[in-house]
Amino acid sequence: MPRFFSNLQQASIFKHLLKWTLLALPIAAGVGSLVALFLWLLDVATQYRFQHPNLLYLLPVAGVFIYALYKYLGKNAEAGNNLILDHIHEPGAGIPLRMAPLVLVTTIITHLFGGSAGREGTAVQIGGSISYYLGQKLKLSSADISIMLLCGMAAGFGAVFGTPVTGAVFALEVLAIGVIRYKALLPCLIAAVLADLVCSAWGIHHTQYRITFQKMPFNLTTFLQTDYLLLLKVIGASIAFGLVSQLFARTTHIFKNLANQDISIKWLIPVVGGLLIISLTFLLQTPDYLGLGVVPPPGGQVSITTAFTVGGATYFSWFWKLLFTAITLGMGFKGGEVTPLFFIGATLGNTLAVLTGAPVDLMAALGFIAVFAGATNTPLACTLMGVELFGGEPVLYFAVACFTAYYFSGHQGIYAAQRVAINKVWHSRENKNTPDE
Amino acid sequence: MPRFFSNLQQASIFKHLLKWTLLALPIAAGVGSLVALFLWLLDVATQYRFQHPNLLYLLPVAGVFIYALYKYLGKNAEAGNNLILDHIHEPGAGIPLRMAPLVLVTTIITHLFGGSAGREGTAVQIGGSISYYLGQKLKLSSADISIMLLCGMAAGFGAVFGTPVTGAVFALEVLAIGVIRYKALLPCLIAAVLADLVCSAWGIHHTQYRITFQKMPFNLTTFLQTDYLLLLKVIGASIAFGLVSQLFARTTHIFKNLANQDISIKWLIPVVGGLLIISLTFLLQTPDYLGLGVVPPPGGQVSITTAFTVGGATYFSWFWKLLFTAITLGMGFKGGEVTPLFFIGATLGNTLAVLTGAPVDLMAALGFIAVFAGATNTPLACTLMGVELFGGEPVLYFAVACFTAYYFSGHQGIYAAQRVAINKVWHSRENKNTPDE
Repeated sequence: MPRFFSNLQQASIFKHLLKWTLLALPIAAGVGSLVALFLWLLDVATQYRFQHPNLLYLLPVAGVFIYALYKYLGKNAEAGNNLILDHIHEPGAGIPLRMAPLVLVTTIITHLFGGSAGREGTAVQIGGSISYYLGQKLKLSSADISIMLLCGMAAGFGAVFGTPVTGAVFALEVLAIGVIRYKALLPCLIAAVLADLVCSAWGIHHTQYRITFQKMPFNLTTFLQTDYLLLLKVIGASIAFGLVSQLFARTTHIFKNLANQDISIKWLIPVVGGLLIISLTFLLQTPDYLGLGVVPPPGGQVSITTAFTVGGATYFSWFWKLLFTAITLGMGFKGGEVTPLFFIGATLGNTLAVLTGAPVDLMAALGFIAVFAGATNTPLACTLMGVELFGGEPVLYFAVACFTAYYFSGHQGIYAAQRVAINKVWHSRENKNTPDE
Repeated sequence: MPRFFSNLQQASIFKHLLKWTLLALPIAAGVGSLVALFLWLLDVATQYRFQHPNLLYLLPVAGVFIYALYKYLGKNAEAGNNLILDHIHEPGAGIPLRMAPLVLVTTIITHLFGGSAGREGTAVQIGGSISYYLGQKLKLSSADISIMLLCGMAAGFGAVFGTPVTGAVFALEVLAIGVIRYKALLPCLIAAVLADLVCSAWGIHHTQYRITFQKMPFNLTTFLQTDYLLLLKVIGASIAFGLVSQLFARTTHIFKNLANQDISIKWLIPVVGGLLIISLTFLLQTPDYLGLGVVPPPGGQVSITTAFTVGGATYFSWFWKLLFTAITLGMGFKGGEVTPLFFIGATLGNTLAVLTGAPVDLMAALGFIAVFAGATNTPLACTLMGVELFGGEPVLYFAVACFTAYYFSGHQGIYAAQRVAINKVWHSRENKNTPDE
């Protein structure tokens, strides 16, 4: 049909996709395998800490070790996720391959000694440094290396949580607030699907979440009886999710700034941070807020999985996890922010459900995705994450929660390199600054 | 917490959302009610035609009547969806309120006499003209009227298909190829949810689709056994979905151009179109390709709902529906393109499933959303539509199908006013033209 498909446009699309499928293969193999290794080590470290809780006392020492590793081996790798985002926005000095092993080792150390941190930052940095290295070796153009980085981020994110669709959309959505540009939409999805598969092939299983929410036929009778009130509760809770995600970003920044201003001997920063974590653990008399927090430690009662059931969180669990994580990540330890954000959101959702009489599992799921959506400014990726993790029935509530939290989280997310493309409260002046072409 | 939430940013967000919730109320009431009236009349007209199949012979006359209505009453309303998109891009001469009744009446006439057309164009135009009218009456600024139009589109789309999340994302995604800008993300969702609710309150029920797809745990064993082959089949089918959506857009344009070039007496265009439809119906000896096509007519065997079962479509059902619709919409009749696109996609999916041995219901669902995604260049909205209509289990396949079809559908979709923000095959030169801020 040459009349319809002129200029061999389809042939060039086919060639483009074939090229990126071939390029996605080594990314997926490398990133998927390293993420699998990382998740396995993380599990070993977490189990070991559960059996040896006194490791916590060594957290300040571990912090000095991490500091030394980055100081003497790190080059510019410490900038982490922001270095990758900056490079996609504007190609710069490059991303060192050593970022991958450094962040992997230091994240494991952080978790082994009880620091409160996550996984996604580590996985995204593994993805970014591997794909940048591949792009350099293959002598790709600067524009193609940007796509490689996006694919690497998507692969890392998709593999670490077992959510490839979310990984692909997240990589594109996180670059700038208020806009998604479809550069490399399909290459990102290919890389994320394959990396998730490679990670699974190594025997890694992701946590399965189950919520019992059943979609009602959406009509006026059921709406006025049940959904109406539930929707209002969801909106109210989502405003809280958005405010808390902003509180998280600001608290982390404040700890980082205070530490850098007031502690002139830099290796003392993680020492003070470690001592703060130890003191708080003593104060609260629970190990619940240490480490990853997906399952409760021996003797603990609060975690992400317990937050989906009544009694699985206390009124202020969300606040304590927020404080532990802000200290850990703001004062020199390593790891991602996302799993702690899941914890903060799910426990806050649990508390709000108990206070308002809404279904606990639904509200925990909404907090899980919405606090993350607010802190990273990625409402569409997080709506899709809700579907990938919890099923499609409550998709309307997922969208309401993520979009609302996005509005109430302000313009400073957890990634300093994220740019503001469109102001959340849209005024006429933005109209002129952001033409549609 | 004045320290954390400076500049009363949250207060301004709250005010912004309150304002748009209040503005969304009349939009939802007006658009939801008119869409309900439209869907009811459409059902009455379809049932009446089923009982009086000879109405088809009057299709040419009906076409002349539609022509006359737009010629003497239409002003600039004939531009339809494109007028609304153009006005959002760049405020122009305005959108006449008469667009709503005109498109409603002419769409019903088209369906009553057997023209092959859809619903979404009508609903979106109802949404656009009502919200524009409200914006003018309330003396809103030009920028605010653009948001009103987006909300109206979201409300119309959300109400007509019962998919509010899709409606909100569609309104933002359809403006330009390759980019979503989050202007009015939450106002659009609020308008779509409320309009869907108002429409349901009038007793309108949407077609329920069921597919039996069960998500497997995604690991290497099951993947190599089943998913691997299925994923390849899905990718192959999705390339076909993308090509067919391009074929649809081009065929419609060709009929429109040929008719305008070769038929100098304008009212003869719908007469010729009507005669073509009658001749094709005689040739094929089936009424399957007339009208909306959600359920089969008496004596017919192919429709959207039947396409989800084995034997519910013939090998070339997709082609005939494409031809019928291109003639109908290219030669002066009125209605949307989307329901025919669902038909084309679902029947093509059915055929490809039979040919490749893939599950028929899954492939029909993928065709349903992917041909639409390709023709309108809205892959994210259509992925979400898959979740809203068919459930969340196959979300990975939804994303693969919609993203792939999007790549293979070229840059001319069904809306001439849609702009190209980012080329689908992304080269380094686009890098310079589309800065991230």
